[in-house]
Amino acid sequence: MKRIVIVGGGFSGVYAAQALERLLRRDDQVEILLFARDNYFVFQPMLPEVISGTIGLTDVVSPLRRLLKRTHVHAREVESVDIDHQAIMVAPGFRPHAHVVKYDHLVLAPGTVTDFRGLPGLPEHALPFKDLGHALEVRSRVIRALEEADVEDDDPELRRQLLTFVVAGGGFSGVEVAAELNDFVRSVARHYRRIDPKEIRVVLVHAGDEILPEVAPKLRAFAAKILRRRGVELVLRQRLKAATGESAILGDGTVIPTKTLVSTIPSSPHPLIDALTLPKTKNGRLQVDGQLRVSGFDNVWALGDCASVPTKDGTPCPPTAQHATRQAKVAAENIVATLTKTPLRTFDFKGLGKMGSLGRRNAVAEVFGLRLSGFIAWFLWRSIYLSKLPGWGRRIKVATAWTLDLILEPELVELRLGGTGGAMHEHFEPGQLVFSQGEIGDRVYILLSGEAEVVRTPGDGTGDRILAKLGAGECFGEMALLDSAPRNASVRCVRAMTVLSIPKREFGLLAANVPGLRASFEQVTARRVLPAKPEASPPQ
Amino acid sequence: MKRIVIVGGGFSGVYAAQALERLLRRDDQVEILLFARDNYFVFQPMLPEVISGTIGLTDVVSPLRRLLKRTHVHAREVESVDIDHQAIMVAPGFRPHAHVVKYDHLVLAPGTVTDFRGLPGLPEHALPFKDLGHALEVRSRVIRALEEADVEDDDPELRRQLLTFVVAGGGFSGVEVAAELNDFVRSVARHYRRIDPKEIRVVLVHAGDEILPEVAPKLRAFAAKILRRRGVELVLRQRLKAATGESAILGDGTVIPTKTLVSTIPSSPHPLIDALTLPKTKNGRLQVDGQLRVSGFDNVWALGDCASVPTKDGTPCPPTAQHATRQAKVAAENIVATLTKTPLRTFDFKGLGKMGSLGRRNAVAEVFGLRLSGFIAWFLWRSIYLSKLPGWGRRIKVATAWTLDLILEPELVELRLGGTGGAMHEHFEPGQLVFSQGEIGDRVYILLSGEAEVVRTPGDGTGDRILAKLGAGECFGEMALLDSAPRNASVRCVRAMTVLSIPKREFGLLAANVPGLRASFEQVTARRVLPAKPEASPPQ
Repeated sequence: MKRIVIVGGGFSGVYAAQALERLLRRDDQVEILLFARDNYFVFQPMLPEVISGTIGLTDVVSPLRRLLKRTHVHAREVESVDIDHQAIMVAPGFRPHAHVVKYDHLVLAPGTVTDFRGLPGLPEHALPFKDLGHALEVRSRVIRALEEADVEDDDPELRRQLLTFVVAGGGFSGVEVAAELNDFVRSVARHYRRIDPKEIRVVLVHAGDEILPEVAPKLRAFAAKILRRRGVELVLRQRLKAATGESAILGDGTVIPTKTLVSTIPSSPHPLIDALTLPKTKNGRLQVDGQLRVSGFDNVWALGDCASVPTKDGTPCPPTAQHATRQAKVAAENIVATLTKTPLRTFDFKGLGKMGSLGRRNAVAEVFGLRLSGFIAWFLWRSIYLSKLPGWGRRIKVATAWTLDLILEPELVELRLGGTGGAMHEHFEPGQLVFSQGEIGDRVYILLSGEAEVVRTPGDGTGDRILAKLGAGECFGEMALLDSAPRNASVRCVRAMTVLSIPKREFGLLAANVPGLRASFEQVTARRVLPAKPEASPPQ
Repeated sequence: MKRIVIVGGGFSGVYAAQALERLLRRDDQVEILLFARDNYFVFQPMLPEVISGTIGLTDVVSPLRRLLKRTHVHAREVESVDIDHQAIMVAPGFRPHAHVVKYDHLVLAPGTVTDFRGLPGLPEHALPFKDLGHALEVRSRVIRALEEADVEDDDPELRRQLLTFVVAGGGFSGVEVAAELNDFVRSVARHYRRIDPKEIRVVLVHAGDEILPEVAPKLRAFAAKILRRRGVELVLRQRLKAATGESAILGDGTVIPTKTLVSTIPSSPHPLIDALTLPKTKNGRLQVDGQLRVSGFDNVWALGDCASVPTKDGTPCPPTAQHATRQAKVAAENIVATLTKTPLRTFDFKGLGKMGSLGRRNAVAEVFGLRLSGFIAWFLWRSIYLSKLPGWGRRIKVATAWTLDLILEPELVELRLGGTGGAMHEHFEPGQLVFSQGEIGDRVYILLSGEAEVVRTPGDGTGDRILAKLGAGECFGEMALLDSAPRNASVRCVRAMTVLSIPKREFGLLAANVPGLRASFEQVTARRVLPAKPEASPPQ
C-alpha cells in the first residue's frame, strides 16, 4: 500500500488530488491524503465579492469532501515536514496528541502567506486578504465602522478614522479589494443618515508608478481612470511602512487616519516551506525541475505559489490559478508515472491571459491576444470564472446570487466574528493617545518597548501637565480597571512603542486568581500613589 | 422636540418602531431612537435553518436600517436604565466614553436571555440558541465534530463525544433545533467515510412527560413519533443538571458523552430588566397594564417577552412573535395617543395558532381551529413564515434558497468563529481527566474550586501512581508549556471543580511580560520539583 500526502487545500493541492483520483481510479493500492487548515477550498478570484455580500458568504468556498470523493481529507494544519524520515507532523485536534503521518510521495502546495513581520504595527492592526476569514473580517469591520460613524457625530477625528478605508498593494488582489470595498461602502452609506458620502475615503496605496503592473499600460491607465471616477484615491510610489490602531503610515511619513487597513502585500513563503532546508530561490520558493520534483528528490513534489516552476523559455511560472491547476495535473501524472515506472512529462504552459475585476460591471482583461476593458471584459470575467467554479451546485448558487443582486439591495448584516479576543500586542506612534482622561477603562497595558508620558488636563484650564514618563516594562491603565472609575489622566506615546494590552474581562479573571499578577500591579500602583516628588506622580 | 427611545431589536422593538414611523409620518417634532446589540433583526422562527445552511447564513436576519427608514438605529448595547432621570446609559463603542441618552418615552423590549447561572459547567460548555451567533456556532461545532471524528479513529471514547449531539429543552425552540441538527448531521455524515451513521446520536432532553407541551396531546405524540423515526433519542422527565467539556449530566446522574451541547432553557429576565426596581411578576417579567404601560408610569412602556401583558380574560400573553408584534402596534398607538392627549387603546389578542417545524417536510400546527401535522402543516409553516419575513428582498432570497435546497446538497463549510479565545473558566466532574500524560501542553490551569489528583503511569507497567493532590488556588500544567515537552503526568478531577484555563499563546504573552505572573508560576514549579517526600512530587 502506497501513500501520497498532499499538503495544502488551494488550487494546486485540490487539483492534484482530483487528478490523482482520476488516474488511480482502478488502483486500490494507493491512498491519497490531503491536509488543509480549513475544510473548504477557497475560490480566490471571487473572494473580494464576499466584502459586499454580492454572493452568499459561503458561495465562494467549496467543502473539500464534496470535491474529493476518494481522497482522505484532514482539516488539520501541518506543523512540520521531516523529509529524512518521509513523514509530516500534524497539529493536534480536540485531543492534544501529536500525529505523525508517513508518506511515500509528498506534494507540497501550501501556497504563500502575507507576512507583516518587520513592519511596525502591521501584524497587530492590518488585515491580510487571503482566506474566507479575512474577507468576512473586512466586511464586518467596514459595517462596524459605518455603524460607529453614524453614532459618533461629535468627534471629527474619530469619524475620519472610521470613514477612511485603506488598501495596500496595487496588484490584481489589491485592486479588486479596493474596487469591491469602495462599491460596497458607497452603496450602503445612504442608509446611514448621519454619514455624508463626501466623508468617505477609500485609498489604494501602491509602490509602483501605475496600478496593475501585470497588464498592458493601456489597461493600467483604464483601471486607474475607472477607480478614480468611482471615488478611489490612488496613492502611488508609496509603501505602507507602519500602522497603528487608528492610522496607516506611509514611507514618506504621511499619516492616513483609518480604522480599516487591508494589505495584500508582502507575499512571503509559507512557514512550513520556510522551515525546510530544501533548494530554494532567493525569494524563498522551492526549486523544482520541469517534472515538478523538488531538486534532488524523486518523491517530493512542489507546485503552486510555493514553488518556482521553470517553463520551457526558462522564466518561472507566475503565481496564478491557471498555472497551479496545470501544474497539479502534471505532478499527478508524474507521481503515477513514478509509481508505475513509466516516463515523466515536462510541464509546459504559457498562460491563457489575465483578468481583473474593477467592481460593478467593469473589468480589464488580456485574453486570446486581445486587450479588453469595460463591460465586455467584466462579462468575460464573470462567465469564465463562473465556469471554473468547482461543482454545478456552486455555479447555480453564484449565478442565482448574481441575478438577485441585480434587483436586490446589498446586505448590511454585521456578523460578529472573533469574539472577545484576549491579550494582544498593539503598536503606537509618537503623539498618539493610548487613552484619554475621562474615558472608561476597558484594558490595561504593559509597555514592551518605546516610551510614553502620562498627561493630566486639570479642570481649571491651567493647561496640560506631564505627570510621569513610562518606559519598557512598566504597566499602566490598571487603576481605572481596579476602581471602575474613568481614566484620571491620558497616556500619550513619545517614542514608537509596542504594548501588550489586556482586556478588562481577561485582566479581571487573571488578577482575581493569580496572586503574582495582582501583586505585580499593586506594587506599581503603590509606587505611583506615594511618589517621592509630586510631579512624578499618580497616573490613570 | 420629543424623543422616544426603544430598547431592543427583536419583534417587539422593531415592530414598535415601524408602527411609530407610520403614525408619526407627518410629525417632525418626535424623534425615534432604537438601541440594539446587533445591527440586524433576527427572524427567530427560521433561526434553526441556519444550522443546516438550508437558507443563506444571513438570510434569516435583516439589517435594522433597511427596516427602519426614519428611526435612528444605534447598534450598541444599553448598560442601564435610569427611570428617575429619564435616561439610558449606552455601552461605549470604539472610543470608550459613556453615552447618556435622555428620553421622553421609553419602550422596554429587550426580550429574555438563556441564563445558565447556577448550573455547574453550563455557562462554560453549553450553547444557548437565541441569536445568529449561536446558530452559526452550533453549525461550526457540528461540522468540526464530524471532521475530527473522521480523523480520530483510534479513540472510541472521543469519537462517542464527538458524534453525540445533545439539545436540552423540549419546547418549540428545542424541538426545532434538534430536528434541524439531526437532519443536517445525518445527511452530511455520508461524506465522512470513516463515520458509521450508527455512531451518530442526537439526544433531546426534556423535563416533562411529552415534548411540545404548547400543542394538543395528539400533536405531541405525532411530533415524538416523527423525531424518533428520524433517529432523535427523546430523554423525558429529565433535566440538564451540569456539563463539562465532554459530557452532559442529567438530574439522575446519567452522563451523556458529548462535545456539542445546546440548551434552549432556562429562559430568564434580561439583565437590564433584572436590574430595574419596577413592579414585576414573580418570574421577573415587568408588570404592565392593558395599555402596555409599566404599572405606575405613563412614559415607560414594556412589551414582548420581558413584559407580563394581561389579556382580557386575565391570563398573561404567551411569549410569541405574534403577540409581540400586536403589542408593539398597541404600544406605538398609545404613545402617540399620550403625546396627543387622546384616549388609549387596550391590548387584546387571542393568538392565531401555533406551529412547529419537525425538519424536512414535516411539522405540527394548530391554526384556524385545526390541528394539522405532516406535509400540509410543514407547507403551511413555510408559507406563513415566508410571508411574515420583513421585506421582499428577503422573501425572494429565502424562497430561492428553499428551491435550490430541493436540488442541491447541504453546505458543509465550517466557518471558524470566535478566533483564538482567551482565558476562560472550565468545569470538570469527578473522574474526568483534565489532560493525559503524553499529550502536548496547550493550556495552563488554575484550580479555583474543587480537587484534583496528579497521576503518573510509569512505562514499566507497574500501575498508576498518584503523585499529588491539588486544591483551590494551585496551578498546574505550566511545565509542559514552559518546556514545550509532552505532559509528564495526567491530572484527574476528584471533587467537581472549576478551573481557569489559559491558552498557551495567552500564557506565553503574559508570562514573558508580567514579572509577577512568571514568578508566581516559577514558585509553584520549584516547590514541586524539589519535594520533601518523593510521593508528593513533580507533576506535569
